[in-house]
Amino acid sequence: MANLIFGGIFGQLAAHMKALDALLRAQVQEFEPEIRDMADYCIDTSGKRIRPALVFLSGRKASPKVAADLVRAAAVVELVHMGSLVHDDIMDGAIVRRNRATAVKAYGTAASVLLGDALFAHALNLAAQFPTVEVCAAVSVSMRRVCAGEIMQTLSRGTTTIDRARYDRIIDLKTAELFRVSCELGAKIAGYPQAEQDAIASYGRHLGIAYQIYDDLADYFGTEDRIGKTLGTDLQSGKVTLPLFFLEESLPASERAELQAEIQGQRPPQLTLRLQQMRTAGVYARVAAEIERELASAQAALASVADPGKSLSQLGELSDVLRDQVKKLQANQPS
Amino acid sequence: MANLIFGGIFGQLAAHMKALDALLRAQVQEFEPEIRDMADYCIDTSGKRIRPALVFLSGRKASPKVAADLVRAAAVVELVHMGSLVHDDIMDGAIVRRNRATAVKAYGTAASVLLGDALFAHALNLAAQFPTVEVCAAVSVSMRRVCAGEIMQTLSRGTTTIDRARYDRIIDLKTAELFRVSCELGAKIAGYPQAEQDAIASYGRHLGIAYQIYDDLADYFGTEDRIGKTLGTDLQSGKVTLPLFFLEESLPASERAELQAEIQGQRPPQLTLRLQQMRTAGVYARVAAEIERELASAQAALASVADPGKSLSQLGELSDVLRDQVKKLQANQPS
Repeated sequence: MANLIFGGIFGQLAAHMKALDALLRAQVQEFEPEIRDMADYCIDTSGKRIRPALVFLSGRKASPKVAADLVRAAAVVELVHMGSLVHDDIMDGAIVRRNRATAVKAYGTAASVLLGDALFAHALNLAAQFPTVEVCAAVSVSMRRVCAGEIMQTLSRGTTTIDRARYDRIIDLKTAELFRVSCELGAKIAGYPQAEQDAIASYGRHLGIAYQIYDDLADYFGTEDRIGKTLGTDLQSGKVTLPLFFLEESLPASERAELQAEIQGQRPPQLTLRLQQMRTAGVYARVAAEIERELASAQAALASVADPGKSLSQLGELSDVLRDQVKKLQANQPS
Repeated sequence: MANLIFGGIFGQLAAHMKALDALLRAQVQEFEPEIRDMADYCIDTSGKRIRPALVFLSGRKASPKVAADLVRAAAVVELVHMGSLVHDDIMDGAIVRRNRATAVKAYGTAASVLLGDALFAHALNLAAQFPTVEVCAAVSVSMRRVCAGEIMQTLSRGTTTIDRARYDRIIDLKTAELFRVSCELGAKIAGYPQAEQDAIASYGRHLGIAYQIYDDLADYFGTEDRIGKTLGTDLQSGKVTLPLFFLEESLPASERAELQAEIQGQRPPQLTLRLQQMRTAGVYARVAAEIERELASAQAALASVADPGKSLSQLGELSDVLRDQVKKLQANQPS
């Protein structure tokens, strides 16, 4: 789901993204001189910028002008996202991200924990540059919720007792929350009435849930060059996501124990076998249906906005883009 | 520097501390249900509460009433402090704090990184409950500065190239900053004119620097039962603080290489020898003089407040309490 994929819509946001990049680059100078190089390393403007796009599309209405407060809100959510990536890479022991060494690889665990903290702190500092506390209040709650989701996921690793409700809750917190607040902030800045702010935020939340399920599906059905990472890492690291959950359900009790042993790290994962079994069990179709359900909820939420205009229509089109991506994974199912 | 030591002054803050404890305990319910037990574990009201005391003494003026906004500000700085302790214990591999397992020991590294993040996020959320962005702005800058100081310290471990200016900068950021902002917030809430807010904040900063130098001195000259931790851990972990810095300066070049090898972890530290050498070189007196210099600066800053009143006078007395603690270390010098 790189920029390229969003091509058409992101192209229309070129001026906004340029302003965002400039603001993010300017933030480096706000860090203490001794950690500026490290902040510069982490404030990477080559990311997908999905969350900033949500802020912009939710908030720009028909105005061709790049509003400074929208750009600032976009920078806040992107900085929170960057901070969480720095900490994620520590947990995952990730060495490479976006074709270069992760912060944890470059600076070590201790410094990276603190560097992520500094990014979070600065995100909130930027949020405090709005005239009212609304943005700080919204973003700090979201940050806490993202952490709660990540904690739940961390503590669930290697356990086979995770149920569907827990999976849903984890992705709602760890991923959908930041999508949701991005849309909420955009809608708030644009001055939509409260009911429409809620509808736009709800769109973001359902899109975020769909996006995370897609990401979890791509871990099994993607191609490595397309998704840019190794396949099957979730099984390898004992992370039970929806495809694995459905596979487990489909296996006869006699075969389930072996899969559970792989999840618990007691046996090496048999990725090829598991992919084959997923195909037999129709896991792709079941997961795709779940994504479709979320995208339908997303679009239903947006449909309640009386006069969406061009910008919210483009926001709605992100659902179609994601739907297309899901379809492309179907072709990659092992035969 | 436990509560007991501050006995007299803290006794006068009993109603404030009680309100603080209640507010901190109430915060547990604000966390997502799934991480509430973990938040409860970390929101430990048995700490020294030095930073809340600074907020209260800087801000209560003559009022016998416990002002809700002072209590909230105190809770914000204490939550930031608690978050940083959770992350500190990860870096230090600390197993025990305040007579029980650290969060990293109880929940593992990954969950503790996220738990510290959640505490920071919630601290900022509480800060966003003030009617204006001032508290969020001040606290988020302080948090970033604390992280910058900790990063500098982390990257300096095991290196012998640290100079005095770098040591001063590290403690100013990692410790004095939170003391400073505690006093600043108290003074701001109390409505002192800007010049007096600055003076009170400056008091906090110098007290914080003095406190950190004292803490570093106690690592060599304390008694284990008094300071509640193992002595000599700084040498063990390659952390160059003022006592070690002065010792290194005092050694002839021929002996310096051996000490540097201990700092770099290439040789086991010879703590008994180093303590003996510190005594011979008069390290205690030199470090005590540095503390005295900071305490004098602290008191000079406070003296510029035209009408300090009883509360600011008590704030000033914290310097005397710290001075007495430093004197007690003198008795512990190895003979």
